[in-house]
Amino acid sequence: MIKVYAAYGLPSFAKGVVRDLRVLWALEELALPYDVHWMHAMKGEHKIDPNRLLNPFGKIPSLEDGAQRMFESAAIVLYLYENAGKAPQDAHARAEVNQWCFAAVNTVEPPMLELFRWDFFWKEKPGRDGVRSEFLAHAHERLADLGKALGDKAYLVAGNFGPADILMTTALDFAQHLPELFDAHPVVKGYRERCHARPGYRRALAKQGQGPQANAA
Amino acid sequence: MIKVYAAYGLPSFAKGVVRDLRVLWALEELALPYDVHWMHAMKGEHKIDPNRLLNPFGKIPSLEDGAQRMFESAAIVLYLYENAGKAPQDAHARAEVNQWCFAAVNTVEPPMLELFRWDFFWKEKPGRDGVRSEFLAHAHERLADLGKALGDKAYLVAGNFGPADILMTTALDFAQHLPELFDAHPVVKGYRERCHARPGYRRALAKQGQGPQANAA
Repeated sequence: MIKVYAAYGLPSFAKGVVRDLRVLWALEELALPYDVHWMHAMKGEHKIDPNRLLNPFGKIPSLEDGAQRMFESAAIVLYLYENAGKAPQDAHARAEVNQWCFAAVNTVEPPMLELFRWDFFWKEKPGRDGVRSEFLAHAHERLADLGKALGDKAYLVAGNFGPADILMTTALDFAQHLPELFDAHPVVKGYRERCHARPGYRRALAKQGQGPQANAA
Repeated sequence: MIKVYAAYGLPSFAKGVVRDLRVLWALEELALPYDVHWMHAMKGEHKIDPNRLLNPFGKIPSLEDGAQRMFESAAIVLYLYENAGKAPQDAHARAEVNQWCFAAVNTVEPPMLELFRWDFFWKEKPGRDGVRSEFLAHAHERLADLGKALGDKAYLVAGNFGPADILMTTALDFAQHLPELFDAHPVVKGYRERCHARPGYRRALAKQGQGPQANAA
């Protein structure tokens, strides 16, 4: 049985952004059975064994699937799709998936994550306003470009929902507290709403953060 | 013929950190013939066509390989290795490569990149010292964890040099201006020096930023 290492006990603003959601979402989309190993994040349970044995950086999430033990949410999502026979098997098509996965976590996510950081953790830090306005400008730039790339496509790669959409949506969601940011980019806004409306996302979001009582229930 | 879209005309501190180096390095390691389409970065040539046609975010680098047109340095490096028959073909081994590629660009790179940003672009920004010290602490944490994960391994995955090492080394190199950071983590320092000593890296670094005169020479 697949085991996901996920967090609970987090403040409400973490709902929808902690990266275990990506893995839960992939599992729900693929209709794979799984267990959750819940870690109390405020107590730092992700920083120690058993998570640390799987995850050298002591982060969330990790995965056990038989002998496969791995970390990094994006790599886990790709693995789950591939292992379920839902990934392209030629180098060219795989490259298209990969480019959008890396674009999500390494091009779109950074300004979104900085807005999250400065709005929730560093709100009182000296110099915040100047820094935040730069990251907000970066975020608008990325969203404008993403909107052009999406055009009238339903999803990022060949119009079919997949790993890149899970990663892109959750990258965007680091700025979920800024609806006006998305209002300024209707194509991206529509894309994000389309992804959020998927039953797999709804189930994963409901599951996220439930904690060990939920397993027992 | 493979064509890499790369930058020239950049300030000297950009040498070794602009992400086209990753692609040049992969090409040199794989001994693949290639051309470079040079873009004057200070004139913003990467933000317009023809690069924009390949790269929705107008970033550096992009790649053309026949009908394959792609962006995101990490995805390009993975594609080049796979297309050259130098990538694992089963989901489990591929997952191990992927997890380290994503760890490089999404877990190790962020604090390194922030140090680069605050030391070269935002040095005069109000509040800089407080922010910088936090990112420096993050960087030390990542390097300590990376050192433990490396242990006595020569390279990240199964002891064989590959895409994850290209991405990890260049992620670390965003902090190349801080030798004392690496001095504090001897295992990582040794790993980085081992990767830098490779002839493929030396050739790629020499090539980086040469500009269109170099093509004509």
